[in-house]
Amino acid sequence: MAAATEMKDHVYKIFDLVGSSETSIEDAIHNAIARASKTIREMKWFEVVQTRGHIENGAVRHYQVLLRVGFTLED
Amino acid sequence: MAAATEMKDHVYKIFDLVGSSETSIEDAIHNAIARASKTIREMKWFEVVQTRGHIENGAVRHYQVLLRVGFTLED
Amino acid sequence: MAAATEMKDHVYKIFDLVGSSETSIEDAIHNAIARASKTIREMKWFEVVQTRGHIENGAVRHYQVLLRVGFTLED
Amino acid sequence: MAAATEMKDHVYKIFDLVGSSETSIEDAIHNAIARASKTIREMKWFEVVQTRGHIENGAVRHYQVLLRVGFTLED
Amino acid sequence: MAAATEMKDHVYKIFDLVGSSETSIEDAIHNAIARASKTIREMKWFEVVQTRGHIENGAVRHYQVLLRVGFTLED
Amino acid sequence: MAAATEMKDHVYKIFDLVGSSETSIEDAIHNAIARASKTIREMKWFEVVQTRGHIENGAVRHYQVLLRVGFTLED
Amino acid sequence: MAAATEMKDHVYKIFDLVGSSETSIEDAIHNAIARASKTIREMKWFEVVQTRGHIENGAVRHYQVLLRVGFTLED
Amino acid sequence: MAAATEMKDHVYKIFDLVGSSETSIEDAIHNAIARASKTIREMKWFEVVQTRGHIENGAVRHYQVLLRVGFTLED
Amino acid sequence: MAAATEMKDHVYKIFDLVGSSETSIEDAIHNAIARASKTIREMKWFEVVQTRGHIENGAVRHYQVLLRVGFTLED
Amino acid sequence: MAAATEMKDHVYKIFDLVGSSETSIEDAIHNAIARASKTIREMKWFEVVQTRGHIENGAVRHYQVLLRVGFTLED
Amino acid sequence: MAAATEMKDHVYKIFDLVGSSETSIEDAIHNAIARASKTIREMKWFEVVQTRGHIENGAVRHYQVLLRVGFTLED
Amino acid sequence: MAAATEMKDHVYKIFDLVGSSETSIEDAIHNAIARASKTIREMKWFEVVQTRGHIENGAVRHYQVLLRVGFTLED
Repeated sequence: MAAATEMKDHVYKIFDLVGSSETSIEDAIHNAIARASKTIREMKWFEVVQTRGHIENGAVRHYQVLLRVGFTLED
Repeated sequence: MAAATEMKDHVYKIFDLVGSSETSIEDAIHNAIARASKTIREMKWFEVVQTRGHIENGAVRHYQVLLRVGFTLED
Repeated sequence: MAAATEMKDHVYKIFDLVGSSETSIEDAIHNAIARASKTIREMKWFEVVQTRGHIENGAVRHYQVLLRVGFTLED
Repeated sequence: MAAATEMKDHVYKIFDLVGSSETSIEDAIHNAIARASKTIREMKWFEVVQTRGHIENGAVRHYQVLLRVGFTLED
Repeated sequence: MAAATEMKDHVYKIFDLVGSSETSIEDAIHNAIARASKTIREMKWFEVVQTRGHIENGAVRHYQVLLRVGFTLED
Repeated sequence: MAAATEMKDHVYKIFDLVGSSETSIEDAIHNAIARASKTIREMKWFEVVQTRGHIENGAVRHYQVLLRVGFTLED
Repeated sequence: MAAATEMKDHVYKIFDLVGSSETSIEDAIHNAIARASKTIREMKWFEVVQTRGHIENGAVRHYQVLLRVGFTLED
Repeated sequence: MAAATEMKDHVYKIFDLVGSSETSIEDAIHNAIARASKTIREMKWFEVVQTRGHIENGAVRHYQVLLRVGFTLED
Repeated sequence: MAAATEMKDHVYKIFDLVGSSETSIEDAIHNAIARASKTIREMKWFEVVQTRGHIENGAVRHYQVLLRVGFTLED
Repeated sequence: MAAATEMKDHVYKIFDLVGSSETSIEDAIHNAIARASKTIREMKWFEVVQTRGHIENGAVRHYQVLLRVGFTLED
Repeated sequence: MAAATEMKDHVYKIFDLVGSSETSIEDAIHNAIARASKTIREMKWFEVVQTRGHIENGAVRHYQVLLRVGFTLED
Repeated sequence: MAAATEMKDHVYKIFDLVGSSETSIEDAIHNAIARASKTIREMKWFEVVQTRGHIENGAVRHYQVLLRVGFTLED
């Protein structure tokens, strides 16, 4: 979906990640990526594959996103 | 997508629900679940199957989410 | 997904559009539709087909949504 | 797919329904909805999810449609 | 999608078939099945996998259906 | 799905279109294509991507088809 | 997928159901249907839409199946 | 999904098959393949495309699997 | 996807075929169709449903394509 | 699909795994997870994405399952 | 799938295009994009949605690709 | 899709990989696998999940493939 003006012949690896948040979908994305960045450098993009959540007492308890994340394999 | 540490041999039933909001996707989810909670107890989780919206005069008029919702059948 | 109480025998045309935002998914939707409204009138609805984003230094740099948008062909 | 000029913040519930007819796909849709209208009011739209049929002696015996149907939850 | 009150432990084989008609989708289904029945006996059901057509001078020239067809393997 | 006996190295462009009819699915296809033919020449084929409809008072009010339509780009 | 030799113009309704078992996929199907049969009569067929499970200490703790179930609407 | 250590430039043909069993999913697979092996030699692999079943009196009457089966075309 | 200017009311049958090649995807397509043409006449079109391959010692050993192929049933 | 009564803001990582067995689908799941548990702790759930198998001499030689497996990233 | 190091808040529009070639899949992609570039500037990326072809006398007559193409809307 | 004559009860792990090339789809596959082989041994097969590319000045700048790759977990 994205364009790239300076992209080179990189090789990317992709992994799937689930994050959650009590406040919003964007915050669940943020939490997942922040946690993954502790061990994986050079993450470049994500795709939201699934958006879910848990309900307690008739209200959303938290949002949960399944992300696909791509990162560059350095040479 | 979710893990469950204390889950037992429950049977869940699933139904589909559409909610909308003028302000955000999260609020559309909230409205759908709040309305459904009037008649269905023990809702446990939801999945966002589709996110849509209506446009008026070149601006988003409201967001509309299609949810799948699961609830426990009590014994 | 939507109901229509006064819909007539309109013919709609659909196109796909990508918008982005640094702040939220809703803002990325807004930006795409606002830009499209410069040249296309009578847009009526959208569907979010894909939600993605870019990552820089372990944080979301911006959100990117792929929308399908429908507009009325006037007679 | 549909536009709505006067739509409000309704919540819709969706259910799946199978109807059949010996004459046509449209008649199978009609039969399913007519039967469902005996118990469900305020149905607003349907989507044909699957079209099938049975064959006897090398000819179509009847058509069978799987519909998703949405109806309004009144406040 | 279908129920069966007297079904036994049959084994079915499935094949895909394309038929067309100038008049209607139902007639395209009919043409495909009538042609196949010349060589295959015991066809039991079909599913419409795709509905297409050709356009000439701004009008539908003919409808074309892609069917999956199941038939019984006799013992 | 279709065969072509005299097809050359044409380039086709595809667009999506929604048409509707109170009488039948075929008529909804017809209405969409007739309307599009006012501005687009050389349409060659269509595919029915989605079949929906609206319900009023427990009866089908009209059918609505989402078509993908291909037309030739002339050299 | 199924053939029906004596099927009439029934209308079916479909609902989704999740069942689980510590022993097998078949037992999870059994548990879901047995529980549903307490309130729904005339169930005729099911389809396994998803098969999942939970893991504890590196072993399968239980299987979980998501079923679509069809039942006849009596006249 | 499968690896092959000695695979050569074979050409495979694929067909779809439905089998059923009153006891288990594995037995339904077995029945389908055993029946097909009467006329087709050199079957090499299968994929379970759909798992369904029939219900009688609130219990599973039999399981039904839709298989894709590949076999070698000999030279 | 294809247009047809002189297509008549043919009935097509479709089958699935796997071919492979050590050199290219196009050659794998070629090998599959060449082998099938020994027994099936009047093949008209193909679609590449899946592209795979085998790896040996960190290099592509051969490409493997899954094709759907349509051929005319003569009257 | 699963509910969770005590789930917290965990981040999960997901990976795909293929296991096989000569006896049953459940045993193939077991073998895959038992092997993975040698190096990955805190696996919480799996989903069966694909069920396949190999055929020898007209009988199932072994079953093969493709699983998606989620495990907790500890803080 | 692609990363972008200098991407700004562009809005992209997407359209679908079919190209063909007698020699290779890559050449069919080339032909489609070269033809589209006569009227559309600022095309940035494409995705191959479908790969098909026509067969004559048991050999591939030409390859045909369906592309989704994205281009920037200038401000 | 593949057959295996000597396959044993291996467990495979799968990962996703993006590679690119300025010359061809096959070369993009080659580049991705060659790079991955630096750290992962015993890769056995791949599947092309997506084929994309970037456009510059109305011409293909490079091809980009998304691969799923399976490798054996040694005992």
